[in-house]
Amino acid sequence: MSGSKTQFAFVNHQFVSLDQAFLHVSDLAIQRGYGIFDYFKVSNGHPYFLDDYLTRFAESAHQMNLTMPLELSALKEIIYELIRKNGLGDSGVKMILTGGYSPDGYQPAAPNLVLTQQEFSLPGPAQYEHGIKIITHEYVREVPTAKTINYNMGIRLIQKIKESGADDVLYHQAGVVSEFPRCNFFIVKQDNTVVTPAQDVLRGITRKNVLAAADVRYQTAEAPITLTDIYEAKEAFLTSTTKRVLPIVQIAGKIIGNGQPGEITRQLLQDIIALEAEDFAKYA
Amino acid sequence: MSGSKTQFAFVNHQFVSLDQAFLHVSDLAIQRGYGIFDYFKVSNGHPYFLDDYLTRFAESAHQMNLTMPLELSALKEIIYELIRKNGLGDSGVKMILTGGYSPDGYQPAAPNLVLTQQEFSLPGPAQYEHGIKIITHEYVREVPTAKTINYNMGIRLIQKIKESGADDVLYHQAGVVSEFPRCNFFIVKQDNTVVTPAQDVLRGITRKNVLAAADVRYQTAEAPITLTDIYEAKEAFLTSTTKRVLPIVQIAGKIIGNGQPGEITRQLLQDIIALEAEDFAKYA
Repeated sequence: MSGSKTQFAFVNHQFVSLDQAFLHVSDLAIQRGYGIFDYFKVSNGHPYFLDDYLTRFAESAHQMNLTMPLELSALKEIIYELIRKNGLGDSGVKMILTGGYSPDGYQPAAPNLVLTQQEFSLPGPAQYEHGIKIITHEYVREVPTAKTINYNMGIRLIQKIKESGADDVLYHQAGVVSEFPRCNFFIVKQDNTVVTPAQDVLRGITRKNVLAAADVRYQTAEAPITLTDIYEAKEAFLTSTTKRVLPIVQIAGKIIGNGQPGEITRQLLQDIIALEAEDFAKYA
Repeated sequence: MSGSKTQFAFVNHQFVSLDQAFLHVSDLAIQRGYGIFDYFKVSNGHPYFLDDYLTRFAESAHQMNLTMPLELSALKEIIYELIRKNGLGDSGVKMILTGGYSPDGYQPAAPNLVLTQQEFSLPGPAQYEHGIKIITHEYVREVPTAKTINYNMGIRLIQKIKESGADDVLYHQAGVVSEFPRCNFFIVKQDNTVVTPAQDVLRGITRKNVLAAADVRYQTAEAPITLTDIYEAKEAFLTSTTKRVLPIVQIAGKIIGNGQPGEITRQLLQDIIALEAEDFAKYA
């Protein structure tokens, strides 16, 4: 933790102390849950794969008819300044763009931009060593390709996950799976093909990196995955910015593969760590 | 308008000037679009059908696992005080309950309660005289019976409504209609039965009042309505707190009935105005 050092956020046009980072209640995120966001990792002052995250942030804004208040180059400078000012260790920067201060509480106005940075804790080594258990739920996000702030379903399912003794929940529709509330999903088939769903998913940056890394060593495919495919798979894992590549060993009470994290999953985790080091070296 | 008189809001435990009504950016509405709300009309200092709206507000909170921070009786006193302090004319009070200040931006915390009051403008007489045009869109709200703040779809459709020269958009799934983003839907069949969908809809307070009023004069039913049923209907209208009973004369370019607001629609509007007067008299 950072002790008593002041932490900063950025709200619209200025840096403010994090504890003074407020939005007026007329903001369309508060009035109507309307906004998009993105989130990237920072280590040793370096924002990993920043251009990818900024591009996706702008793309989400576009899909939700929100006008970016800044050029990406200007936003980038603000991000670097925020990181310098905060001087945190392993942390994440969240960028939120809302529907703005709406006079009638419904029509979008000039978007509000909020940047915050917060230290995070990675999954413990036990989760990587033994893998996690997941459950499933029938649901498709409303605008799957945009990273909107709508997590009504994911948050309502927190209780169900807990009650099931599971770690996360995989969305599916009529047995065809898509993604987790905050992670992408992969399986490794018996012939070592690495597969991830192409439809109804957020285009994860770690998903993209894993596909690229997997492509060097194995066959890969972006293709539909059914629940049956998962039961017949050799390995399964999820990907996310903070979790990187996390093995899944059980789904809805059924064992996947041999019930242990698989070799290919472990390899891809190492490959992602190597890709991060490469990205760091590029800018160091 | 209220000129330069200070307007008040209520945020958590205190009244604040409306322009000082802020939430910290860690609030789960801003982070994850997580919250519920309700909205009722105030005229001559009287909040119409207040108990109905409070009951629904509590029910939405319950469905989204949010704990009400106050007893309804205490909330009611605050509402009356807000109305007294603001001294507005025809206006609406909005109550928002969010997922609270979440330390990790995902797990709900102690909910934040926000009350605001704002003057509104009713639809003009032309809309009541000539009726409105609507379009349709395939969509079902994620938690139809809860009044969540998630209006991603409704707000994204504002542009489509405008481009179609229409006034609102009716949701349907595979041709079975449900509701508008902010209103309920009714038809009057050729045999004068007044019908409104029972499934996948918010239980509108005006919807309830219209059903009660219609029940006195006509046959009524809560039953599925298909797009074909609408084309064959005698009349169609929408209901909402601010719009009361508003005739619909065109759907997706097709004329409904004779293309004019119907007699039964007009009658029910008068009945709702009478019910409001009755509710006012009860507390005057």
